[in-house]
Amino acid sequence: VNYTVKEISEIFNAEYIGDGDYTFNSVSSLTNASRNSVTFLGKKNFLGLLNTTESRVTVTSRKFSISCKHNVIISENPYLLFAKISQLLNKKKNLNYTIHDSVICQTKNLGGKLCIDPNVVIGENVILGENSFIGANSYIGDNVKIGLNAYINPNVTLYNDIKIGDNVIIHSGVVIGADGFGYASEEKSWVKIPQVGSVEIGDNVEIGANTSIDRGALDNTVIGNGVKIDNQVLIAHNVRIGNNTGIAGCVGIAGSAIIGENCTIGGGAGIQGHIEICDNTYITGMAKVACNIKEAGVYSSGTPLMLNKLWLKNAARFKKLNEFFLKSNNKDK
Amino acid sequence: VNYTVKEISEIFNAEYIGDGDYTFNSVSSLTNASRNSVTFLGKKNFLGLLNTTESRVTVTSRKFSISCKHNVIISENPYLLFAKISQLLNKKKNLNYTIHDSVICQTKNLGGKLCIDPNVVIGENVILGENSFIGANSYIGDNVKIGLNAYINPNVTLYNDIKIGDNVIIHSGVVIGADGFGYASEEKSWVKIPQVGSVEIGDNVEIGANTSIDRGALDNTVIGNGVKIDNQVLIAHNVRIGNNTGIAGCVGIAGSAIIGENCTIGGGAGIQGHIEICDNTYITGMAKVACNIKEAGVYSSGTPLMLNKLWLKNAARFKKLNEFFLKSNNKDK
Amino acid sequence: VNYTVKEISEIFNAEYIGDGDYTFNSVSSLTNASRNSVTFLGKKNFLGLLNTTESRVTVTSRKFSISCKHNVIISENPYLLFAKISQLLNKKKNLNYTIHDSVICQTKNLGGKLCIDPNVVIGENVILGENSFIGANSYIGDNVKIGLNAYINPNVTLYNDIKIGDNVIIHSGVVIGADGFGYASEEKSWVKIPQVGSVEIGDNVEIGANTSIDRGALDNTVIGNGVKIDNQVLIAHNVRIGNNTGIAGCVGIAGSAIIGENCTIGGGAGIQGHIEICDNTYITGMAKVACNIKEAGVYSSGTPLMLNKLWLKNAARFKKLNEFFLKSNNKDK
Repeated sequence: VNYTVKEISEIFNAEYIGDGDYTFNSVSSLTNASRNSVTFLGKKNFLGLLNTTESRVTVTSRKFSISCKHNVIISENPYLLFAKISQLLNKKKNLNYTIHDSVICQTKNLGGKLCIDPNVVIGENVILGENSFIGANSYIGDNVKIGLNAYINPNVTLYNDIKIGDNVIIHSGVVIGADGFGYASEEKSWVKIPQVGSVEIGDNVEIGANTSIDRGALDNTVIGNGVKIDNQVLIAHNVRIGNNTGIAGCVGIAGSAIIGENCTIGGGAGIQGHIEICDNTYITGMAKVACNIKEAGVYSSGTPLMLNKLWLKNAARFKKLNEFFLKSNNKDK
Repeated sequence: VNYTVKEISEIFNAEYIGDGDYTFNSVSSLTNASRNSVTFLGKKNFLGLLNTTESRVTVTSRKFSISCKHNVIISENPYLLFAKISQLLNKKKNLNYTIHDSVICQTKNLGGKLCIDPNVVIGENVILGENSFIGANSYIGDNVKIGLNAYINPNVTLYNDIKIGDNVIIHSGVVIGADGFGYASEEKSWVKIPQVGSVEIGDNVEIGANTSIDRGALDNTVIGNGVKIDNQVLIAHNVRIGNNTGIAGCVGIAGSAIIGENCTIGGGAGIQGHIEICDNTYITGMAKVACNIKEAGVYSSGTPLMLNKLWLKNAARFKKLNEFFLKSNNKDK
Repeated sequence: VNYTVKEISEIFNAEYIGDGDYTFNSVSSLTNASRNSVTFLGKKNFLGLLNTTESRVTVTSRKFSISCKHNVIISENPYLLFAKISQLLNKKKNLNYTIHDSVICQTKNLGGKLCIDPNVVIGENVILGENSFIGANSYIGDNVKIGLNAYINPNVTLYNDIKIGDNVIIHSGVVIGADGFGYASEEKSWVKIPQVGSVEIGDNVEIGANTSIDRGALDNTVIGNGVKIDNQVLIAHNVRIGNNTGIAGCVGIAGSAIIGENCTIGGGAGIQGHIEICDNTYITGMAKVACNIKEAGVYSSGTPLMLNKLWLKNAARFKKLNEFFLKSNNKDK
């Protein structure tokens, strides 16, 4: 679909500079743009690309607009406006409401307006909201309830009894509702604690490829509304995640941890079990969170990268750090 | 099924206080209990919940029993007793021995007393023990041998030639027997070393969602009896894990590492290849284990979490730690 | 297939010592060898195994050859020669070119010389190169293009529009082309940025079990030729990886990071988004890479492992490291 600069500006209530009749139909990076694509510029260090881009329409801030030689759509949050324009230009196609012949379904009345791809297996008493899509070779267990407009990609596994809200996107390889890692120790062996809780997932949640979210041991694991979870994340049993928190890839969140609203957990971070993290906390990548966080802020752990030769020496000193402090304090006396 | 306090106490040879005829039929947390559910109290900091819980039967230690207003079942390891009661109340349903019509199986005599869900694909010469379950869309390669009472969830992949013991639970997304990461370098490219070993998994093992266990390069990868593995764990080729070791989520164990019996590996820890860890070792979360461990104990690495502002300063100093020690030692002379 | 020592030596242009007519037909470790297996010895610390091995043919360096009592094939890179001998002895079986009846395929002319296992689902306009194998229950989205000799194991998911070169091996659980983790923030919620880029994977790439490679946000995610990726790796949107780089298990590479050629990324390392790593860089296991690397070398971060008791003390001191340096510097004045 083609839009003019003027049309887009009106839709999003934005100001434009240049030729309001100029049309485009796709989004692109500055580097690989064509004359038909709209681009965005959010950071100073990409200003140079304006000289070489084929794009003739750029979404940017007023400050950077003066560097643009062609048409500009102005926003103080150009990334956000660009996201919205991109959503408009890349609207999901309407689903073709069909249930493939190969689908094996034990639920009698799945409901209408569904698109279910080949080889999906669906258990008993499943409820799927209207306009939902289930990708090929996925498995939906008994008593699963999924809201409207779900988009479940191929090869997803939902264990029994999971509840999922509206507008949820689940990527391939995701496993929701597997047993949590719960054992009592008896002498030297482990006795399994039946995981009888479930998983509740709110509205507008997206879950990345190969992520796993375990069912609760007794109570449920709970993912709030608007939570965004990247790939390869582990969310253990009875974790609770507040609304609109974002969790980057490879994060592990151990059992019963409680994470507040509007938090950002950087990639590869590890959250210990049974701790609480307050709202609006930002954890940087690969941090190890082993204590409660009661005050919003940016938190980190780890050491910086250095040449291995130097690292070996510093790391060896780290082993003697306490000793060194003690010696030094003694000298001061 | 309903049990009375007295019945349960007799089954598990435990003492009770209160009304022996009081009945319950489910397990619950103190917070979400009903009058029909048994709860447990293991730690002092949950004592307050006794005032508000609806539960009328709590499994706890003698010490805490005096704080309970209602019926108590006493155990010096209440978590363990509760696990056993929960197993009794949440017995797995008997399998409905059927092989779904859609199952594609190249093995002529799979044996009886099996429950195989839709779209499972099974190769040649597979042996499945009695009372085993295979979930939908799973793949079982040629010559795989699985013991009694296996519970293999949907979307599991077992490559050829894997051997698995009795009473094993495998969660969705697990991949067992993929090629290990083995290459010889030739000038600047990599030459693949055929991974001709297999994987042997003992009895009573549980393997969490999206975990992968690679086949051996020459000899086998070996997982001992009673080993419990959480989600998203990587066990590389030729790793050997001793009996009853527990491995929490997101752990990576590199090739040919040998881990003893009764160890606990905390979430997100990384174990370097070719090292040995002795029995009864406890590795805390996110630790980096790059050397042999010859003495049982609790081991850690990393740095504590702090505000990013402070962390940046301390981390910068870490880069100069050796220099600082040297300077300081010189001054002392 | 049996080979004599002499035959192998001639094929690989290597020198041998001993009985050129001695035959073998398999590869083995020194520990578990039989009289029919060839072994290799690469490191001094395995010299002792020569006394007990059943093997009568060992690939090793000239230096170690004097310790061998039996036949020796000499190479200055015995691991590499052993890899090549193993490839010869463990040649992949020729594919049985058949497309299983259960395969569901929307592409009209898939082409010939293919082996496609049961329950594979294939979208529209897919191109599969000759001599390719697709394992059971895998999903291949619309417009996917795969080169010659692909070996795609069961339960793999390829989203739409992915391009894959020749001679690629993909292990089970891999997801290629899922949406990257891209959102703009609007007040407290997240607005999804449509991920309209794709993934390009070069020739001779191997991708380990349960790894995920996201599609690009605007431009493509690009994996070079000869790249080897282990299990459970996350490669985020718009990452670019240079030729012949090796990436060990559990690594996470955040969005738009650029990694050079011939790099090695150790297991569990985390690479921050938008950074660049130059060619020939070696990152040790679990390192956190949060800055550009402009000079080839070996880089590390983290702290060494120690007893938890000692670690607690040292870690506490780390929190005061900057303070301590400042105090110490003041004293010097």
